[in-house]
Amino acid sequence: MKVRIFDTTLRDGEQTPGVALTPDQKLVIAQKLDDLGVDAIEAGFPIISEGEMVAIRHITGAGLKAEICGLARTEKKDIDAAVAVGLKYIHTFIATSDIHLKYKLKLSREQALEKAVEAVQYAKSLGLQVEFSAEDATRTDREFLKKVFKAVTEAGADRLDIPDTVGYSTPQYIAEITRDTIDATHLPVSVHCHNDFGLAVANALSAIQAGAKCAHVTINGIGERAGNASLEELVMGLQCLQWDKDRKFETNINTKLLYETSRFISKIVGVQVQPNKAIVGENAFGHESGIHTHGVLSNPLTYEPISPELVGRTRWFQVGKHAGAHGVAAMLEEYGIQPSKEQTHEILEKIKKLGDLGKHVTDVELLGIAGEVMQQQGLKRLVHLVGFSVSTGIGNMPYAFVKLNIEGKDFISTDYGVGPVDASINAIQKITGEISKVRVKDYKLDSISGGSEALCEVTIKVEDAYGNQASAKSVGEDIVITSVQAVIDGINRIMLKKILKQKNLGQ
Amino acid sequence: MKVRIFDTTLRDGEQTPGVALTPDQKLVIAQKLDDLGVDAIEAGFPIISEGEMVAIRHITGAGLKAEICGLARTEKKDIDAAVAVGLKYIHTFIATSDIHLKYKLKLSREQALEKAVEAVQYAKSLGLQVEFSAEDATRTDREFLKKVFKAVTEAGADRLDIPDTVGYSTPQYIAEITRDTIDATHLPVSVHCHNDFGLAVANALSAIQAGAKCAHVTINGIGERAGNASLEELVMGLQCLQWDKDRKFETNINTKLLYETSRFISKIVGVQVQPNKAIVGENAFGHESGIHTHGVLSNPLTYEPISPELVGRTRWFQVGKHAGAHGVAAMLEEYGIQPSKEQTHEILEKIKKLGDLGKHVTDVELLGIAGEVMQQQGLKRLVHLVGFSVSTGIGNMPYAFVKLNIEGKDFISTDYGVGPVDASINAIQKITGEISKVRVKDYKLDSISGGSEALCEVTIKVEDAYGNQASAKSVGEDIVITSVQAVIDGINRIMLKKILKQKNLGQ
Repeated sequence: MKVRIFDTTLRDGEQTPGVALTPDQKLVIAQKLDDLGVDAIEAGFPIISEGEMVAIRHITGAGLKAEICGLARTEKKDIDAAVAVGLKYIHTFIATSDIHLKYKLKLSREQALEKAVEAVQYAKSLGLQVEFSAEDATRTDREFLKKVFKAVTEAGADRLDIPDTVGYSTPQYIAEITRDTIDATHLPVSVHCHNDFGLAVANALSAIQAGAKCAHVTINGIGERAGNASLEELVMGLQCLQWDKDRKFETNINTKLLYETSRFISKIVGVQVQPNKAIVGENAFGHESGIHTHGVLSNPLTYEPISPELVGRTRWFQVGKHAGAHGVAAMLEEYGIQPSKEQTHEILEKIKKLGDLGKHVTDVELLGIAGEVMQQQGLKRLVHLVGFSVSTGIGNMPYAFVKLNIEGKDFISTDYGVGPVDASINAIQKITGEISKVRVKDYKLDSISGGSEALCEVTIKVEDAYGNQASAKSVGEDIVITSVQAVIDGINRIMLKKILKQKNLGQ
Repeated sequence: MKVRIFDTTLRDGEQTPGVALTPDQKLVIAQKLDDLGVDAIEAGFPIISEGEMVAIRHITGAGLKAEICGLARTEKKDIDAAVAVGLKYIHTFIATSDIHLKYKLKLSREQALEKAVEAVQYAKSLGLQVEFSAEDATRTDREFLKKVFKAVTEAGADRLDIPDTVGYSTPQYIAEITRDTIDATHLPVSVHCHNDFGLAVANALSAIQAGAKCAHVTINGIGERAGNASLEELVMGLQCLQWDKDRKFETNINTKLLYETSRFISKIVGVQVQPNKAIVGENAFGHESGIHTHGVLSNPLTYEPISPELVGRTRWFQVGKHAGAHGVAAMLEEYGIQPSKEQTHEILEKIKKLGDLGKHVTDVELLGIAGEVMQQQGLKRLVHLVGFSVSTGIGNMPYAFVKLNIEGKDFISTDYGVGPVDASINAIQKITGEISKVRVKDYKLDSISGGSEALCEVTIKVEDAYGNQASAKSVGEDIVITSVQAVIDGINRIMLKKILKQKNLGQ
């Protein structure tokens, strides 16, 4: 069965507190969502601002494959605003739970029902496709909810949506009211699930099993408060898990674009994705423990439910105190290094000692340890940071001086940038670009919340002219120095990789 | 019904790739978990390293109320290591799925069964309490799984655990095998759910509904790959949602400590919590949209499923392009400012214009706009950053010069710190500490991933000598300058608050 994906990243997602997008950004996001293959895009809530109207007009005029929808209260002016920006499809809503009626709308059940019916009739009279939501449906009196849905169906609604507005439903209950709604109206039913108890995806899946044809979702699960059901989790759950014996669920999503889309949205809206987020979190396909690494090296499916390539990703390994011999050997093999069994165990012991000290073990350190144990000269840092100084301020151009020692030779460089980190990286690249054509491709900074003296963690990705890539991570108190150290580590990794490859080819 | 909370933050949580804790850190975390009220703490995996053994020995000797458990493969040496560190309770496991048996263990089903039985018998002969896990249970042949659980029950196991090792189960399936297991053994059953499809909490809840008595969970849902079921989501879901008509679920958790514990663990393990994480994410009780803010101001339960105080938090509001008149009025009211209806709408229009430009609107800006519209002099920036210069490097002590203008008077200061941001904040505090006793209490830096020229976002909290607090946020390219701007904004907010309060008291 094909499940319809209604993406509301641009509406409920933009309602994430603190998030604001320009019309141009909204258009770019709509294009990305269209490329991903969503069936419908809720582009915004036209009545809220002039910029919002401009954005939606751009999106309705962009010739996208997805259906474009806009939100409207059950008010004529909201529906008129939707028409004014070129929408042919609206999502109109009114709250139906007693708590919303009493405290927010100050309407009786009958008054709300009347407003719902009038709005649907008005929108249909304008030739719009209408999806009707009974806001806070999961806390609405069950008989009244059926009555509302029946009435708007008779008024001409094309689709019905069941919002779990405060994420309060259990999978069982949303399945029950989904069946109620289908039985009472025979219209296609959507669900719009919030994540206040971490159940948004489970509730949406449960409603789909009960007969819902569509889910409202957002990329990375962003949205009001704890957000909405995550598109990426819902889609992969539908496609990969075993739901019914006789029924397979499918969507139109090009799953290979999921990771890229997630990163794009995270960056443009400024809402981070935690490392342990399903499907798109940095750690979702990362392995450290010895048992897991050993399993994945034998057959990835032992500790990965799906292949990372399916969602546009690659797996990675990390060594540390939970590491095992198989993982260490595999990571060294990547560099063409093959320690004996005894050497591998000696390397492992040294890694575990570092782990017990609370230290992250990077590849450069792993190679350094391997070099020490195997008494090989080649496996050591090639690039050393010898001197470094950076300045910034108001009115000052941020600038940096860097002195590197590369294979015994000193190099000095200076450069400026948009900030002190950028200036430092530019200065380093001036040197390494000449020597070895290594460039910084990606830079990510995480802080570990706390005071201004807290640790920060910098992750970078470097690339050489031949497309070889390497990542490195550094942790420290001084943001600028930590960043520079990560860059130097990354450069070491990529240069070592290259040298070792050449050596092994030469042998 | 009381549900047992088995916390594995210190074992599966520590297996998060890149996370390594020192023995001291593990002990502090165990104490925090004990204060929170977990029933059992899985303190680690003794065999993996010497540091791990030291850590577990400290924890077993700390006199905690929770039962302390350790992980062991079905190997004598693993069980002996557990005994050596003072454990009286082990969690032993062997994989039972065909894919794990074939590729990882290279054992037949019968051989694995035999190892499981032998390990349980051996552990029982040493007087240990034994919880047995059939690793990858949810991908194990259903009849074989029953056979294994029956056999270890006969061998003396005290508890059984069903791990959904790669997060592959649906809520339905884990409920079915939970019932199978209970029917076949009559032992207390736990579930250990992974989050690869975002269903860890839903699966654990489903198993509990089916009769499981215990869930393995971690704080913030950290753990291998996409992590484990989140303690905070599971506990709040159990206690707050309507599961069965005749049955209420309870736990021993002191829910008021959930947020504090989440922040503590995030900081110490270095794994961030995303803003849209349920219960403990920064946005879980934040509101921006006009409709939501209006609802929450009338009655918080309209858009909050539970009171934030229940989990040790407070709600907050943000203005922006989705804001409405009620929210703006309420936020200004906090400062004792009461614009007329027309003025409120004029302020709102200006806020929406900023939002359409993609701008975050801070309180200081809101007050500035209100001051402009209401033609009030008092509502403007009191502290201006006039000059600023900072330096750091290798061998250099990071130092900063700051020139502030406060209510027309210039102040100059210099200070050093662990990094350039810390140095700048120290220099600012030297001035404002004297003038108005404002101190920086909390500093948080988020980067929006991308190149080194990407934007960063700084959130700070300041406090004065009377306990008044204010938060501020700043976004920019230069980490150091952005941090300094956030601090200045925070100081302005707290000084404005104070002045306005005094004014209103004086009137």
